[in-house]
Amino acid sequence: MTILTFGHQNPDTDTITSALVMADLQKALGKDIEAVRLGDINGETEYALNKFGVEAPRLIEKLNKEEVILVDHNEFQQSAPGIEEATIFMVVDHHRIANFETAGPLYYRAEPVGCTATILRKMYKENDVEIKPEIAGLMLSAIISDTLLFKSPTCTDEDVKAAEALAEIANIDLQSYGLEMLKAGASTKDKTAEELLNIDAKSFAMGDHEVRVAQVNTVDIDEVLARKDELEQAINAETAQEGYALFVLVVTDILNSNSKILALGQQQSMVEKAFNVALDQNTALLEGVVSRKKQVVPQLTAALTE
Amino acid sequence: MTILTFGHQNPDTDTITSALVMADLQKALGKDIEAVRLGDINGETEYALNKFGVEAPRLIEKLNKEEVILVDHNEFQQSAPGIEEATIFMVVDHHRIANFETAGPLYYRAEPVGCTATILRKMYKENDVEIKPEIAGLMLSAIISDTLLFKSPTCTDEDVKAAEALAEIANIDLQSYGLEMLKAGASTKDKTAEELLNIDAKSFAMGDHEVRVAQVNTVDIDEVLARKDELEQAINAETAQEGYALFVLVVTDILNSNSKILALGQQQSMVEKAFNVALDQNTALLEGVVSRKKQVVPQLTAALTE
Repeated sequence: MTILTFGHQNPDTDTITSALVMADLQKALGKDIEAVRLGDINGETEYALNKFGVEAPRLIEKLNKEEVILVDHNEFQQSAPGIEEATIFMVVDHHRIANFETAGPLYYRAEPVGCTATILRKMYKENDVEIKPEIAGLMLSAIISDTLLFKSPTCTDEDVKAAEALAEIANIDLQSYGLEMLKAGASTKDKTAEELLNIDAKSFAMGDHEVRVAQVNTVDIDEVLARKDELEQAINAETAQEGYALFVLVVTDILNSNSKILALGQQQSMVEKAFNVALDQNTALLEGVVSRKKQVVPQLTAALTE
Repeated sequence: MTILTFGHQNPDTDTITSALVMADLQKALGKDIEAVRLGDINGETEYALNKFGVEAPRLIEKLNKEEVILVDHNEFQQSAPGIEEATIFMVVDHHRIANFETAGPLYYRAEPVGCTATILRKMYKENDVEIKPEIAGLMLSAIISDTLLFKSPTCTDEDVKAAEALAEIANIDLQSYGLEMLKAGASTKDKTAEELLNIDAKSFAMGDHEVRVAQVNTVDIDEVLARKDELEQAINAETAQEGYALFVLVVTDILNSNSKILALGQQQSMVEKAFNVALDQNTALLEGVVSRKKQVVPQLTAALTE
């Protein structure tokens, strides 16, 4: 049976490209494997796929007891429906581990680096597989996306070195391509409020609560928050339907590296505790905050589990 | 603060030596680290430590919010008391992942090989750190122990190749040393029933039940089961105290690669279902079974979660 490889729901550039890259690597190692995806391709990822002439993975709705390789995630609530009954053969990831369990031994590789692609690049080297130019292009796109062109506190020296080496293979200027790609993903005007909330949203178990943290990258925070009423309606509707205790929308200015949050839900006060801010009409500016993983989720988790 | 590295409770040779080996590797990489252990050294491990002139790690009772590196395990119920509040910096393991969770990203490396030492050997290579003869001796002892001198179904080609390469560094004949070491750990006469049950025992969550699976290696199954009444009393006492739904003692003949099980507890009938055997006075022979990980735990898990 064909192995399936995929990243998380509401896929971002690292998740989509890492599935494609993993499939490329495993094919070179003789495996029968297909990259798939769990949701729509966002504007930034589309820009990267077009640039390097690679087709998007096939969309799947749920698993059917396949053998799978997870990339860029491990928490079951962020994975494909049916993941509990799949055989997880391998995981390559750079996030915390939680709500993850297997029946048997597996290959699991996580490193605290900025991007899954940085780990995948090592695996090509270790297995003596050559990285083709278009694959290098996908990988450097993932690194640019996850590190906001090396500005995120999640970015490590390894990520920078990997991106530079990959840029040589792909024959790309990192700065100019990177800015173009990020801007392609930062267009918010053509999206409904519901779409904005689902560009890059993940659910987290924090204490006894389920918390939703969505992130939108933009070059103009005010443009996004001009639609605050519409966004609040959509957040309240989604919160009511899914039973979130808290919904935090993080609107990130990718040029100036700040974020404004819009927080709603029964545990709203925990946001003030987590970031030591006072909410003003449900919003607050978080100076220097760009990383959900390092600067939002741990702080919220601490506030909600104390 | 000094990082602590340790394996599972009721330590076996792989757990003890992998903590020592991890500390050696991390020291070479500039880390301040100490290998510790969570229980008594068994006869086999003592034989290996004496052979290569290495001291046992320090015994600890519980953690105190240290930074830690786990080797040879990940499930919290098999780890040190206080693990929930420690900062898990790294895990190197070859078991399934379950009941494991971190707040932040970490370095996690698991591979489905027979022994943690086989993975650690790769890490020396990748980091360009030389393996000293006594460290090679500890690592090959772990591989011999976990694979029962390459006879267990958990043993992979990688384990055999690693052991052979390590034997050259340590200047050891694998077959003769391996048999001596296994026999040193297979002496059961000088142990109380309680001690036998705790040489190599682990708890597992299976469905809603907690199941204890203890293993004793021997060169004479009858010698162990001559003490069946005494063992049953000890099992019943431990089961009552800890609330196990099932206690399975696996007595493994390391020369002929068979096991006889002694099973007690409220879920005893699940053993008959799992292995398709009829228990005779609470015991059954399992032909060709030597691996708890591959030939006992998955079968029991399936029976108890169906």
